[in-house]
Amino acid sequence: MWIQRKITIDKKQKGFHLITDQVLNQIPEINKINIGLLHLFILHTSASITLNENMDKTVRDDFESYFDHLVPENQPYFKHVYEGPDDMPSHLKSSILGSSIFIPISNSCLQLGTWQGIYLCEHRKHAPTRDMILTIQGQKYAVEKMSEK
Amino acid sequence: MWIQRKITIDKKQKGFHLITDQVLNQIPEINKINIGLLHLFILHTSASITLNENMDKTVRDDFESYFDHLVPENQPYFKHVYEGPDDMPSHLKSSILGSSIFIPISNSCLQLGTWQGIYLCEHRKHAPTRDMILTIQGQKYAVEKMSEK
Amino acid sequence: MWIQRKITIDKKQKGFHLITDQVLNQIPEINKINIGLLHLFILHTSASITLNENMDKTVRDDFESYFDHLVPENQPYFKHVYEGPDDMPSHLKSSILGSSIFIPISNSCLQLGTWQGIYLCEHRKHAPTRDMILTIQGQKYAVEKMSEK
Repeated sequence: MWIQRKITIDKKQKGFHLITDQVLNQIPEINKINIGLLHLFILHTSASITLNENMDKTVRDDFESYFDHLVPENQPYFKHVYEGPDDMPSHLKSSILGSSIFIPISNSCLQLGTWQGIYLCEHRKHAPTRDMILTIQGQKYAVEKMSEK
Repeated sequence: MWIQRKITIDKKQKGFHLITDQVLNQIPEINKINIGLLHLFILHTSASITLNENMDKTVRDDFESYFDHLVPENQPYFKHVYEGPDDMPSHLKSSILGSSIFIPISNSCLQLGTWQGIYLCEHRKHAPTRDMILTIQGQKYAVEKMSEK
Repeated sequence: MWIQRKITIDKKQKGFHLITDQVLNQIPEINKINIGLLHLFILHTSASITLNENMDKTVRDDFESYFDHLVPENQPYFKHVYEGPDDMPSHLKSSILGSSIFIPISNSCLQLGTWQGIYLCEHRKHAPTRDMILTIQGQKYAVEKMSEK
């Protein structure tokens, strides 16, 4: 069983944003899946996706501060500067954090750890909406199990 | 063919640990698979998984030193500090290194390069056991091939 | 439907190289796939794969400069030094950037964003050819759709 769709995440401020619920709302079919995997893929090179702590907003704040220190704007050796000082750092953060995640599915549920949430990492100061492709592949329940559900 | 199970890795010291054999021991069914993929997913936000050099212990030692320099404790701008000075750096290392890996399976074997091994990256000083979900999806051998094996 | 093959990328200079077309040329069967995923996996620990900006060569140049600053050679605490000063930084860059990527497939095409391209990140100064395993898993078109194509 394959499911694939494009989803659009509304414009976000530069920073790290928890989008677990927004993603879950897009995949009602997960309740038919016994074993599977969710792939979430962002179609951009200046934003990224990662998994991290889902409870305390200060973790996301510290991510933002840390990554601004790790990849500072206006490095003297930067050549790609014509799209603004936050552009090249955005590309670099995008590759350090990554453009896709996979999460296992078991028994109709995403198997995230207790503290794991999905972060959209927005690296641009004036960002557009962000498109993602969500792909699920999984094994449906055997018929006898489905009738119990 | 889908296989999925939760495995628990015993408590480790802070540092980078080779767990290739421990993972392989958990997947005897791999010998039925002609083509496939193994997904290894850690259910935590202060430990991570990566692939790197599988032979020389000094590589893992240098990983530990380097990542402690890359993400230092006690940054003046950290707000998320109540779980100890190694907590926020652990979250950051977790997203830089990543929480899952995929390895191709061919002809009943994990297709790792000669020098590739699986690292469990433990970022906390007093860490608990670590849970992972291991998912294999693959194509079984055609019947004639299976009878040869 | 599973497709898996090993591909070899010719020797590259240290730096970031766009290989999207080289990869696409290896997967003519993609035109049979309705929904699927491409996995690209590098069998080495001193080179990596990532997705980033596919147009402007200066982005790749800035990647090279930045990652040389992020992971400098000859750190006083490095122990793994006998393979040359660029060896340990190569291992570290390999885990920061990652050894595999996934790209969704829809309607016979890789679903890359407008600006996304595949980078081979070569971290060694005198690098060998690089082997990758390419795995595609996907759903074929239903018969009626195939006959239209």
